[in-house]
Amino acid sequence: QYPSTQNTKELQPLMANPICETTEQKKQQPQGPERPNSHQKFKAKLMQWVSYIAGDMAAFGEWMKGQFILLQILDWVLRGAAQVMFVNNPLSGLIIFAGLILQNRWWALNGFVGTLFATISALIIGQNRGAIANGLYGYNGILVGLLMAVFSNAGDWYWWLLLPNIFMSMACPIVSSALASINSRWDLPVFTLPFNILVCLHMVATGHYNHHFPQVLFQPRTSMHNLTWSELDYPKLFRSIPVGIGQVYGCDNAWTGGIFMIALFISSPITFAHATIGSAVGMVSGLALAAPFQNIYFGLWGYNCVLACIAIGGMFYALTWQTHLLAVACAFFCAYLGSAIANVMSTFGLPACTWPFCLSALTFLLITTEIKNIYKLPLANVTYPEKNLIYFWKMKKEERIAKQRKKQEKDMASQQKKEEIMAAMEMKAHQHLDVCTVDVQQEETTQNRPDRNSEATELNLTKL
Amino acid sequence: QYPSTQNTKELQPLMANPICETTEQKKQQPQGPERPNSHQKFKAKLMQWVSYIAGDMAAFGEWMKGQFILLQILDWVLRGAAQVMFVNNPLSGLIIFAGLILQNRWWALNGFVGTLFATISALIIGQNRGAIANGLYGYNGILVGLLMAVFSNAGDWYWWLLLPNIFMSMACPIVSSALASINSRWDLPVFTLPFNILVCLHMVATGHYNHHFPQVLFQPRTSMHNLTWSELDYPKLFRSIPVGIGQVYGCDNAWTGGIFMIALFISSPITFAHATIGSAVGMVSGLALAAPFQNIYFGLWGYNCVLACIAIGGMFYALTWQTHLLAVACAFFCAYLGSAIANVMSTFGLPACTWPFCLSALTFLLITTEIKNIYKLPLANVTYPEKNLIYFWKMKKEERIAKQRKKQEKDMASQQKKEEIMAAMEMKAHQHLDVCTVDVQQEETTQNRPDRNSEATELNLTKL
Amino acid sequence: QYPSTQNTKELQPLMANPICETTEQKKQQPQGPERPNSHQKFKAKLMQWVSYIAGDMAAFGEWMKGQFILLQILDWVLRGAAQVMFVNNPLSGLIIFAGLILQNRWWALNGFVGTLFATISALIIGQNRGAIANGLYGYNGILVGLLMAVFSNAGDWYWWLLLPNIFMSMACPIVSSALASINSRWDLPVFTLPFNILVCLHMVATGHYNHHFPQVLFQPRTSMHNLTWSELDYPKLFRSIPVGIGQVYGCDNAWTGGIFMIALFISSPITFAHATIGSAVGMVSGLALAAPFQNIYFGLWGYNCVLACIAIGGMFYALTWQTHLLAVACAFFCAYLGSAIANVMSTFGLPACTWPFCLSALTFLLITTEIKNIYKLPLANVTYPEKNLIYFWKMKKEERIAKQRKKQEKDMASQQKKEEIMAAMEMKAHQHLDVCTVDVQQEETTQNRPDRNSEATELNLTKL
Repeated sequence: QYPSTQNTKELQPLMANPICETTEQKKQQPQGPERPNSHQKFKAKLMQWVSYIAGDMAAFGEWMKGQFILLQILDWVLRGAAQVMFVNNPLSGLIIFAGLILQNRWWALNGFVGTLFATISALIIGQNRGAIANGLYGYNGILVGLLMAVFSNAGDWYWWLLLPNIFMSMACPIVSSALASINSRWDLPVFTLPFNILVCLHMVATGHYNHHFPQVLFQPRTSMHNLTWSELDYPKLFRSIPVGIGQVYGCDNAWTGGIFMIALFISSPITFAHATIGSAVGMVSGLALAAPFQNIYFGLWGYNCVLACIAIGGMFYALTWQTHLLAVACAFFCAYLGSAIANVMSTFGLPACTWPFCLSALTFLLITTEIKNIYKLPLANVTYPEKNLIYFWKMKKEERIAKQRKKQEKDMASQQKKEEIMAAMEMKAHQHLDVCTVDVQQEETTQNRPDRNSEATELNLTKL
Repeated sequence: QYPSTQNTKELQPLMANPICETTEQKKQQPQGPERPNSHQKFKAKLMQWVSYIAGDMAAFGEWMKGQFILLQILDWVLRGAAQVMFVNNPLSGLIIFAGLILQNRWWALNGFVGTLFATISALIIGQNRGAIANGLYGYNGILVGLLMAVFSNAGDWYWWLLLPNIFMSMACPIVSSALASINSRWDLPVFTLPFNILVCLHMVATGHYNHHFPQVLFQPRTSMHNLTWSELDYPKLFRSIPVGIGQVYGCDNAWTGGIFMIALFISSPITFAHATIGSAVGMVSGLALAAPFQNIYFGLWGYNCVLACIAIGGMFYALTWQTHLLAVACAFFCAYLGSAIANVMSTFGLPACTWPFCLSALTFLLITTEIKNIYKLPLANVTYPEKNLIYFWKMKKEERIAKQRKKQEKDMASQQKKEEIMAAMEMKAHQHLDVCTVDVQQEETTQNRPDRNSEATELNLTKL
Repeated sequence: QYPSTQNTKELQPLMANPICETTEQKKQQPQGPERPNSHQKFKAKLMQWVSYIAGDMAAFGEWMKGQFILLQILDWVLRGAAQVMFVNNPLSGLIIFAGLILQNRWWALNGFVGTLFATISALIIGQNRGAIANGLYGYNGILVGLLMAVFSNAGDWYWWLLLPNIFMSMACPIVSSALASINSRWDLPVFTLPFNILVCLHMVATGHYNHHFPQVLFQPRTSMHNLTWSELDYPKLFRSIPVGIGQVYGCDNAWTGGIFMIALFISSPITFAHATIGSAVGMVSGLALAAPFQNIYFGLWGYNCVLACIAIGGMFYALTWQTHLLAVACAFFCAYLGSAIANVMSTFGLPACTWPFCLSALTFLLITTEIKNIYKLPLANVTYPEKNLIYFWKMKKEERIAKQRKKQEKDMASQQKKEEIMAAMEMKAHQHLDVCTVDVQQEETTQNRPDRNSEATELNLTKL
């Protein structure tokens, strides 16, 4: 009610909007078929059960709203943990935490502390409750917490680290909110930019030679490394795919990566598929650019591509085969960019973090094109790939119907006109008939021409 | 009158708008109380005298408009000198120049030349006269002039330095205007970004190994420094607070810092308080991040926090206890960022300048929140903290009155309706009475619900 | 037809819009003078012939639309080659390719491949056909192709280089489109930013110590170089002017630079003049900042200034003497910035590319001013300096006429009023006459005052 300059649009969630349609859909589902046989019944039951744990678990989220606040915060924290991979699902979050504990308990603790304090901070500085409940303020927190522990040179269980961890986690919603004010002008999400900014901030502010919070040493490459192609280890290369997915959370354990893949699959198979493709693309790019094999095995070429491929392939664009190809192209671009950024950052003693993902995904989301099948969803309607796809199909169908109706009306109008003219003709003598029909035909052609043009461009576009 | 693409909004002043209400208020003041006693008379007289030298000295500015152009330019230069600290006051500017002369006369000369040529350049390239008169094109000039002298390795009184000094000062309004075109889209000021850009430009373009304009050598830290806590010198630590304020202008003399504090106090006690808090926060952060004591004593941890704390605490946000806390948080964030940027810049042989302040203040000004007491003033209404606060209170009061009136009207309408229904009831038989009252009650509840909700959120917000 | 968030404005061409008025103008030209003598006839004929090869060769472009697609693409590629210098002319493109072949055939091949694949990629990802036909997606491609060959350390005719060359060229339209989405908000072109981003990306991703694609080694300066002013070689210094123009395409051959100058001249003499001035300004700046003579001779100080001077001097601003001075100022600023960026980039083993030009030109295009003669053309109306000037004059003339008409109407109205009053006067007695005339005069003065004011500001502005 204040004459505030703060755009209400900017108050919208950072990455996606909570839409509670699914619960309504679910309620309607059982009512649907009047006389289902046992097979149909079983299928419907199964679908219902799947809907409870898959997707964004909206029903669970609704139910949570009535629970005790601490339970709610736990839900938000779990969703936040999964939102790193664009998954808004507390079960996936729980599985991800299991994977983290398998990797390193100290890291897992730091990750939990980070998510928790980021969420609390978002509550304190008065951010949108719906966005918080979807974990959109937590995912930067978990990454900040985890990676500060991963890159700390003070060893595990160095408890002082929790202090900067909490400080930086609490700064997450501030940076998120500020970046959202900028990015919302282009209807773009903030991705993991706050995490990148804050972890780099902490690492470069302290550095390797700090007394309180020393960091792992990163140094630029100053000589040629060995590269013997015969030494290429194929099992390790294959294992780099799950490791690449694990590296999104800074984990180099292939089992942890595998657990993360399960977490992705239960929420969204499309996300799972693109994560796998992204990791593979990253690995191939590493080989193409003659990267040290050790880095490829360690998943350093994969994790950015994983995120970029998920983001473009179905999450922020509706999944069509064009956007699928775009996602693969983005993954390649991201791998290239990853190598570049890693080299630049090493000059400052910094890792690449997920800068390559953020920059490449933002670039690919900023593209404007005349191809209709590359459809960027409005940020407020982004949920998860499957649901985004349904949204896109629905919209396309409605449009087609509207088009058809318009055409029918036009045809009818033209028919009517023709008939009127015919009637008028019959009243008149026959000698003038030829001229009139020519007129009518001309009229038709002029009416049709724009349509034909647009069809031509459509044809042209689908040649892509 | 040209169909220009240049938005007129972007032509507005860079940081604050000249509003001449104070003069009118002052004229009205003496008319106010009809029969004042001697005490009141004295107080009124005192207030009037204070208003002549405190705040933005608007009366003086008005009077200046009729003077000779060189005198006017002197006024603008002095205001420009003070605008570094967001103070629009020629007297403060004069005191600041005195402090600079106490520090180093060659630096002071360079600062004066910088301010002068930046102001002249702004006139030449046709910038808004009001903004120039408020010193908004001078403050980057003084910093450019001063810091180019401070970081020059050619020694004092190296007269050739005036050439790049004049060139860079004259480039200030160009960069200011360009940045304002971008920042105005988010209603943000340009702060000292032009200074940062131009001084870094000059330093990195020439570098330490230049024949004409050699720069002081900055190098990245490559080993652990000693840090013996028992060696901590408390008097020096305490002295680092005024030194931190002095370092805003590149001065390491505690007395100069003290003089600057006086300059702040006479214009705005709120600014003075936040400057002191900011400097203290910077010093504490330096200790927390294990910085070399010498840097802390030298005020390098303070000056960015000083500026950030002033900007958030009352200058661009209306001062409430929430924004006061936000200012302290911003100062801590700024100190962290300062350490990070100093390390990054040292790779290029550059000092941190005031990049940390600019980036942290911009981040904190971009935040969007649902808390009503964090109110960002429209850039055109920003003057100085005390006046901003009066603006905020006034706006809040008007809003409260409007709300009350609305409520009264609603109550009256509901009362009237009830009475009407009652009258209708009495005409009718008694058997239908129960049903109607229920209706009325329902109506009331639905009307009240939105209000109660908004009150609930308010309560929630004030829990912060 | 989708409710897309992608602004249609953003789909507009990146730097200039295809406007086909010239063809119409040409058709009208011969009709113009009814009875021309032989001299006039010859002149008209000459003008017509000049119009066929000068400017943007719009008639040729129109004619091309009906040709075979491969021929069309060749036209687009040639225009793309020339668009690096803001020249939309296939003949200039052809001459430029001749210059490149003179310099190095392998580089020329890479440049051609780059332009070709960038254009094809723009077609594939559905960019605006008009922008493609004007070469606006090709010019980044030619630079990417050329400079990747120039900076490759693997020697000429290393055929594998074509792979990253094609990949990066095809990424050009993606990055162009993304940047255009951002820059279009300020009605700014993307310049050569996509080239800068992608070449730096490739170079820093691979680096000097890469097995597949090693890069030339760039290292920061770490000691004083010799600088003996007596060794200054004036013929070489003079030759650095065409070399500077050649360096826009990475060519150090003075003859190649000369050929490029011819290519510029046949399209637009204003562009040619500003290119020469820019190169000279760069050379002078290099001397002023004590750069190693070898760099100056090699044209490294010139090429950014060339581009910046062309962009500001008549291309995006209408050419007046104010914008001419602005262009020279921009060239100086660009030279300074060039030195700074070269030093910063060398830390990462990178050359400066054309970052200095992009950043300085964008800065100078973002300026807002109250001077009417600094008129930034709407991006959609930018063609080439001569035509831009005609557009500006036409607009100014129309405005003057509109102003005059308004004034006349006002005068007439005031005259009429006066006459009415006079008539009324005559009916009345003579004693009240004096009072009325005073009234009329007062009315006149109040009406004139705003006009006089605006004239005063105009006078003030022309004092620049």
